[in-house]
Amino acid sequence: MVRFIDVAHMRDWVSTVGVAEIIRGMAGYVEDDFRRWEHFEKAPRVASHSHVGVIELMPTCDGRNYAFKYVNGHPGNPSRGLQTVTAFGVIADVDSGYPVMWSEMTILTALRTATISAVAARVLARSDSTTMALIGTGSQAEFQSIAFRELLGITSLRIWDTDPGALDKFERNAAALGFDIYRANSASDATNGADIITTCTADKALATVLTDDMVAPGVHINAIGGDCPGKTELDAAILHRASIFIEFEEQTRIEGDIQQLDPAHPVTELHLVLNGEAPGRTSASEITVWDAVGFAIEDFSALRYVNDATKGTRFCTEVDLVADPSDPKDLFALVNAGANSLVGVR
Amino acid sequence: MVRFIDVAHMRDWVSTVGVAEIIRGMAGYVEDDFRRWEHFEKAPRVASHSHVGVIELMPTCDGRNYAFKYVNGHPGNPSRGLQTVTAFGVIADVDSGYPVMWSEMTILTALRTATISAVAARVLARSDSTTMALIGTGSQAEFQSIAFRELLGITSLRIWDTDPGALDKFERNAAALGFDIYRANSASDATNGADIITTCTADKALATVLTDDMVAPGVHINAIGGDCPGKTELDAAILHRASIFIEFEEQTRIEGDIQQLDPAHPVTELHLVLNGEAPGRTSASEITVWDAVGFAIEDFSALRYVNDATKGTRFCTEVDLVADPSDPKDLFALVNAGANSLVGVR
Repeated sequence: MVRFIDVAHMRDWVSTVGVAEIIRGMAGYVEDDFRRWEHFEKAPRVASHSHVGVIELMPTCDGRNYAFKYVNGHPGNPSRGLQTVTAFGVIADVDSGYPVMWSEMTILTALRTATISAVAARVLARSDSTTMALIGTGSQAEFQSIAFRELLGITSLRIWDTDPGALDKFERNAAALGFDIYRANSASDATNGADIITTCTADKALATVLTDDMVAPGVHINAIGGDCPGKTELDAAILHRASIFIEFEEQTRIEGDIQQLDPAHPVTELHLVLNGEAPGRTSASEITVWDAVGFAIEDFSALRYVNDATKGTRFCTEVDLVADPSDPKDLFALVNAGANSLVGVR
Repeated sequence: MVRFIDVAHMRDWVSTVGVAEIIRGMAGYVEDDFRRWEHFEKAPRVASHSHVGVIELMPTCDGRNYAFKYVNGHPGNPSRGLQTVTAFGVIADVDSGYPVMWSEMTILTALRTATISAVAARVLARSDSTTMALIGTGSQAEFQSIAFRELLGITSLRIWDTDPGALDKFERNAAALGFDIYRANSASDATNGADIITTCTADKALATVLTDDMVAPGVHINAIGGDCPGKTELDAAILHRASIFIEFEEQTRIEGDIQQLDPAHPVTELHLVLNGEAPGRTSASEITVWDAVGFAIEDFSALRYVNDATKGTRFCTEVDLVADPSDPKDLFALVNAGANSLVGVR
C-alpha cells in the first residue's frame, strides 16, 4: 500500500494545522535540502509544450529518496473555471524503487512556492522590510502574503491585478487574515514605496509586468510568474540594475526572466547564499531579484515535509498501487483466476 | 475527480476479461500509435540510477493526450519478496493539463511488453513458427507466452531459468493454460529447435544469456531483458549475424543490447516496418532480433487502451486529485477555514 493524500486530506491538514505553521516547518526542510545541494541529481524539468500550456515532470533524487512532480501551466484555464496550475507528486524509496507516498500538489505547490520565495527574501530583502507590493492576486497571492509575514514580518500589502475580481477576492481573504491593504490603481501605484515587489502573473507571453521606473533602489523583487520559455515579467532594464538570484542555472537560463539576458550575465544560485559561499544582499540600496521558476528540489522538500508531518495522522489514507504477489516472480497469479474465461463484461 | 485503477481493479479487469483478449485489443492500439509515430513527442526516458536499480519517468504526447509512466527496475528485489519492476502511470488532457486517469502499471506493463513483443514478432518471426524458447521464466513469462499464442500461434514452449523455483512456477501456470512444455537442462537445450527465442532475464549486468552457437538460421530473438546501460543479454556475435529491430534509436543505443555495437551499426525502427517503409523479415534463413527496451509510446497506447476499455465499467474508481475551488483564482478558499487556528494535531 502507498500512502495517499488526496485533495480532501490536504485541505483538512492545511486548514487544521494552518498555512503559517506549515510554511514555517517547510522552510526548514527547504533550507536543509538547499544546504546539501551537491547530494541531489539535478536536471532541467522535462516539459511538453502546446499552444495553450505546458505539462512538466520534475524529478530529483538525493540517493535515499526519489521524488517527482507532475505540473501543468495553462493560463487560459481560469476563463473556463479550471486552475492555471494543478499538480501531484510522488516520493519513492531509492533502495526498493517502490513509491512511498503520493500527494495532491496543487495546494502543496502554492505552499512550497510561497515558502521558497520567503526563504530567498530572508537573505535578499532588506531586513527592515514591512511593505510588499503584489502584482497579480490570483491563486498564489494569499500563500505568498502569509509566508512573507511569517518569515519576514511583512504586514502591509499594496495590491494590483488586471482582473478586478481577483483583487476583490484577495482583499476579502487578506483582510480577514489581518493584513493592512492598499488597493492600487495600477502596477506603478502598487509598487510605490514597497520594500518588496512580488510579481505573480500567468500570461504565457513576454509581458512587462514591471517597468524600470517602478523599481526604487533597495527593493527586492520576488519574480515568480515568469517560468517558461517565452514567458517573462520584468523589463530587462531592471535585470541590468539588479543582483540576480536563481534556483538552478541550467533550467533558469531557459525559463526565467534571465532568458532576456546574455547567457553569460552573472547570476547566483540561492544555495550558495544559504551555505555562506556567496553573499546575498550587500547594501541597503542594492536591487535584488529572485528570478524563481520552481525547481524539483523544492518539491522534493515539500513532499518530504508533508510525508513526515502527516505520517500516522488522520491526514492521509492509503491506495493499492503496487501489485504484490506472494511469489514475486508469479505476477501472473494475480490475474490468473479468470484467465481462461473470456466473458466480456464491458 | 480523476479516474483511478488500483491493483484490485486491474486484477478484476484482467482476470475477468482475460489476458488474451486484452492483448489482442491492446495490440490494435499499439499498432495504431506506432503507425502515427511522427505525431508523438519522443525523447529517451529520464533515468535515475543507483547501485541497486533504476527509477525512470517515461513521458510522451501526441498533441491530444499526454502520458507518462513511473517505473523501477531492481534486480535484487525478489530476494526480499519485492517485485523487480513496479510501475504506475497517468494519462492527461493536453488542452487543460488536467490528469484524466491514473493506473497501476505493474500488471499493465507486463501486458504491454508482451503485446509489443508479439506485434514485433508478427512481422519479424517466420510465419510458420510454432515453438518458442523462454530463457527466464519470471514475472513476464506467462504474459509473453499468451501473447505469442494469441498473435502468432505459438503452442510449444522450451523453458529455462537459473532459478528452479521460477521454472516450477511457470510450468504450473503454463500447463494450466494448455501449452506444450519442455523443461530444458540449460539455455542451450532450451533453444534447440526453437523458432523464436525470448530472453527475459533481470540481472543488471553485461550478461551473455544467449551465445552465438545457440542461434540457428531463421530464428527470431525477442530480447526484452537487456534494457539499461550496462545490462545486456546477447553475445555481440549474434547481433553481427542478425537484422536488428528496435523501438526508438536514440534510447536503444543507450539501453539496448546494441550498446555493445558501433553507434553506426544499422538498425531499423519497428514503426517503419509496420508502416511498410522498411522490410521486416526478408528470408526464411534470416536471423532477426527485436532489441526491446520499452518505450514511452507503448505505455501511452496501454494507458489509452485501458482508459477506453474500462470507462463506465466496474473496473475503475475515482480519486480526488485536482483541487477545484469554485473560483479558480481562490485556491486559498480551500484551506482557509482554519487558517487562523494554529492548533497542532499531529
